Amino acid sequence: MISVIILGAGNVATHLFKAFNSANQVTVKQWYNRSIDTLNPYKNEVEIIDDLAQLKEADLYILAVSDDAIKTLSSQLPFENRLVVHTSGAAGIYDIDKKHKRGVFYPLQTFSKTAAIDFANVPICIEAVETPEYYFLKDLAKSIGSPTKKVNTDQRKVLHLAAVFVNNFTNQLYRVAHEITESEGAEFDLLKPLILETAKKVQNLSPFIAQTGPAKRNDTKTLKRHLKLLQDPHHKDIYNLITSSIQHTHGRKKL
Amino acid sequence: MISVIILGAGNVATHLFKAFNSANQVTVKQWYNRSIDTLNPYKNEVEIIDDLAQLKEADLYILAVSDDAIKTLSSQLPFENRLVVHTSGAAGIYDIDKKHKRGVFYPLQTFSKTAAIDFANVPICIEAVETPEYYFLKDLAKSIGSPTKKVNTDQRKVLHLAAVFVNNFTNQLYRVAHEITESEGAEFDLLKPLILETAKKVQNLSPFIAQTGPAKRNDTKTLKRHLKLLQDPHHKDIYNLITSSIQHTHGRKKL
Repeated sequence: MISVIILGAGNVATHLFKAFNSANQVTVKQWYNRSIDTLNPYKNEVEIIDDLAQLKEADLYILAVSDDAIKTLSSQLPFENRLVVHTSGAAGIYDIDKKHKRGVFYPLQTFSKTAAIDFANVPICIEAVETPEYYFLKDLAKSIGSPTKKVNTDQRKVLHLAAVFVNNFTNQLYRVAHEITESEGAEFDLLKPLILETAKKVQNLSPFIAQTGPAKRNDTKTLKRHLKLLQDPHHKDIYNLITSSIQHTHGRKKL
Repeated sequence: MISVIILGAGNVATHLFKAFNSANQVTVKQWYNRSIDTLNPYKNEVEIIDDLAQLKEADLYILAVSDDAIKTLSSQLPFENRLVVHTSGAAGIYDIDKKHKRGVFYPLQTFSKTAAIDFANVPICIEAVETPEYYFLKDLAKSIGSPTKKVNTDQRKVLHLAAVFVNNFTNQLYRVAHEITESEGAEFDLLKPLILETAKKVQNLSPFIAQTGPAKRNDTKTLKRHLKLLQDPHHKDIYNLITSSIQHTHGRKKL
């Protein structure tokens, strides 16, 4: 049985708590947060605390807190030489105070407050200073059904950056599509199957192979017509930039 | 029983043929293409022709051809006063020769040569000059399990434009993510569950509500760190533009 203690109460902390709490080989010994009120709904499932001095001994302490809080919180932990990990895609492993055994347990997924998460769809990127800790973290991820990948700091940071492109930036393109359709009283809902299919397509094909459309074909007539249709100059900027990015990728044009 | 004749042999034509051919209430009477070789694999399932003079009478003629070919092909059809539709998101309904009853049957989805398509996930945007034709086309779409939407020309054109954003442009963001991860020897595959989850999220939430990340939070430290990580100036341009688009949408910054 692996014992873990979670620190923090955001989306990642909450989803990890739920996953660990229902895993057979894991017990969540305590859940810490600066403000205990946030944890109150879980007080019958786990010991909740707001005082670091009350922290018990455990196999692992998970700092699921904001990047800025990792350094201070890890130095305030009233023990040493135990395994402490953070869950950030961007923070360094050495942001964790050097009195601890250090690691990173970065779940590469978007977490929302409400939606349930199946950890089978959450790859865990693992970083550890020492090999035994790496295998320990790998086993832990396996216990909640997650695939894992050993990464170094640079790889984790580019994955975090690439995640911004495929998640936040993609979502903003959906938003622009929403604005464009609404402006003509057309229904954004009609685009939802296409949105899903586009994401499904690259599960098996590379994005390079999956590309289609007027930019790739260099269909200048359609490109011009589209630019004329776009009212908002910001939408036009996005159209122009990503069109030329596609043409750059597919050798239509030098940028 | 509805009888249709398909003209053209691209992806849309082929997927429509397969769908209609297996629908109970529809019979594909003929399949025309300028070059008959492309249609040869289907010669045991349907009458294939390459001569417009051989066209038989049918309830509907579907021009699943390139936008530029619609005008000429429709004028070459050796009959009049029958229902002729095209399948384009961008071509005008009046591109079809005025000797015909005219309509548009625009499937809003991405079609690839290999992948099978479930038409339940293909909304058909219908445009017709007269009401009876609209209902006829709606029934036809229903026969292959597709949801339908009556649209006018302007709405269809913005849907086609918006489709470029959520399909081609989104796919290009996947491509950029592929380039970024590969540059550090990290695995693009790790992003695939996130790509899928991002698309699933907006099936139920608006993209506005679904947005998260450093741009929305105006987390300038992370934004700076990301820009520093990006090597390719084109990637930097995309990062800057979409970040400011998100901040514009979420009121962080005037563009």
